[in-house]
Amino acid sequence: MTPIVCIVGRSDSGKTTLIERLIPVFLARGFRVGTIKHDVHGFEIDHEGKDTWRHRQAGAEVVCISSPEKLAMVRRVEEEYGLERLAAEVVGGGVDVIIAEGYKGAKKPKVEVVAPGDAAGPLCAGDPDLVAVVSDSPLEVGVERFGTEEAEALASFLEERLFLRRPKGAVRLVVDGRPVELKPFVEKALVRTLRGFLSSLRGCEDAGEIELRVFSDEES
Amino acid sequence: MTPIVCIVGRSDSGKTTLIERLIPVFLARGFRVGTIKHDVHGFEIDHEGKDTWRHRQAGAEVVCISSPEKLAMVRRVEEEYGLERLAAEVVGGGVDVIIAEGYKGAKKPKVEVVAPGDAAGPLCAGDPDLVAVVSDSPLEVGVERFGTEEAEALASFLEERLFLRRPKGAVRLVVDGRPVELKPFVEKALVRTLRGFLSSLRGCEDAGEIELRVFSDEES
Repeated sequence: MTPIVCIVGRSDSGKTTLIERLIPVFLARGFRVGTIKHDVHGFEIDHEGKDTWRHRQAGAEVVCISSPEKLAMVRRVEEEYGLERLAAEVVGGGVDVIIAEGYKGAKKPKVEVVAPGDAAGPLCAGDPDLVAVVSDSPLEVGVERFGTEEAEALASFLEERLFLRRPKGAVRLVVDGRPVELKPFVEKALVRTLRGFLSSLRGCEDAGEIELRVFSDEES
Repeated sequence: MTPIVCIVGRSDSGKTTLIERLIPVFLARGFRVGTIKHDVHGFEIDHEGKDTWRHRQAGAEVVCISSPEKLAMVRRVEEEYGLERLAAEVVGGGVDVIIAEGYKGAKKPKVEVVAPGDAAGPLCAGDPDLVAVVSDSPLEVGVERFGTEEAEALASFLEERLFLRRPKGAVRLVVDGRPVELKPFVEKALVRTLRGFLSSLRGCEDAGEIELRVFSDEES
C-alpha cells in the first residue's frame, strides 16, 4: 500500500498551494508523487464537444484517452470510492507517496492548513491522525507547526512519519519545474557521465546520492 | 477480457458520431460500455487553473479526482499503453464491451467508417480484422456494409461477432438519452413493480426480458 497523507483545511486555506510546494520537493528527493483530490462540488474535467466528452454524453460508463505521453480516464460510479480503493485501483503502483487533498474523515496522517486570521481554529484539533499544521501564526494544537513556506521541512517530517524510503539508484530530472522522463539508456548514459566526471573531483570519488541543480542563466 | 471493437477511419469520417449512435443502442440492450480514444495530437483534458491541473503542473505522476458520481484520473506514461493494457488496467471490470476509437493497427475486430465521396477507399481494405464498413454508398471490400443511420443493425452484428451475452437480470434505465444509475433497492422495487404489473396482462405472465420505452409527451 502506497503511503498516503491528507492535506486538509477549510476552503481557501491554501491546501492546493501547499501541495504545489510539496510535490517538487518530493520529486527532487527521488519520490514519484500521486495526488487524489476529494471533490464535493461536482467536477467537470473534460471539455465540452471533445470526443471523450461526446462518448460520455452518449452514456459510456468509462471513457479513456491514451497518447504516448499520458492517459486519462473518467468513470461513473454508483457510490464514492474511499481513499484506499482510489489508491489501489485508480492510482495503482508506480508512485512512492500519495498526497490527498481533503478527506478530513479518513484514518490517515493529516496535515491541516490554517489560513491567517482563521478565528475558528483547526478543523481537526484533537484528531489523533493530525500530525502537523501549516500556519504562519502560532497555534495551540499540540502537533508540529510549519510555516507556509517551509515545504522542505514539512517534506522531511512527512518522510519520517510515512516511513518513506528514498529510492536507490533513482534518477529524477526536473527542468524548469517540470519532471522529464528519461528513457533507460539515456538515464544510464547521464548517470555514468556524471559519475565519471565527479570521480576526478577530490572528495567526490565515491559519490552516492548526487544532487545537481543548474539555475537559469537569466538573473532572477 | 472484455470484448473490444475498434472504430477506425480517416479523420472526419464520422467515427465519434458512429460511437455516439452505438452506445445508446448497447445501453438499451443491457450492456455497459467503455470507450478508449486513441489520441495522436496530444490531448488536454483538464482545465487550466483547476486544482488537479495545478497538481499535475507541480509534477504529480498521477492525479485523481473523486466525487460521489464520478472519478477521473490523468497519468503520465513513459510509453504508450496498448489497447489490451488500457482495457485491463484502466477501464477494468464493470463494462460488457469496449468501443475503441482509432487503433487501426490493433489485432481486434474493426469497423471502418468511410466518409461519402472518399475516393481513396477504406484504410483497412484487406485487413483480416476488418469485419464491417459504415458508408452510405456501396463499397467493394468483401465485408458487411451498414449505413450511417443503421446503428441498431450494426450493434446486432457486433453482438454476434464479439459473442456478447445480454446480461441476465440487468436493468438499464435511460432517460432522455442519458443512463440513470439505480441504487440496488430502487432497482429491485422498480423491477418487482413492473413484473407485478405485467403478471396480470395476458401473455406477459412469465415475462423474461422486458423493454419499456416511454416517449416524450411532446410531438416530435
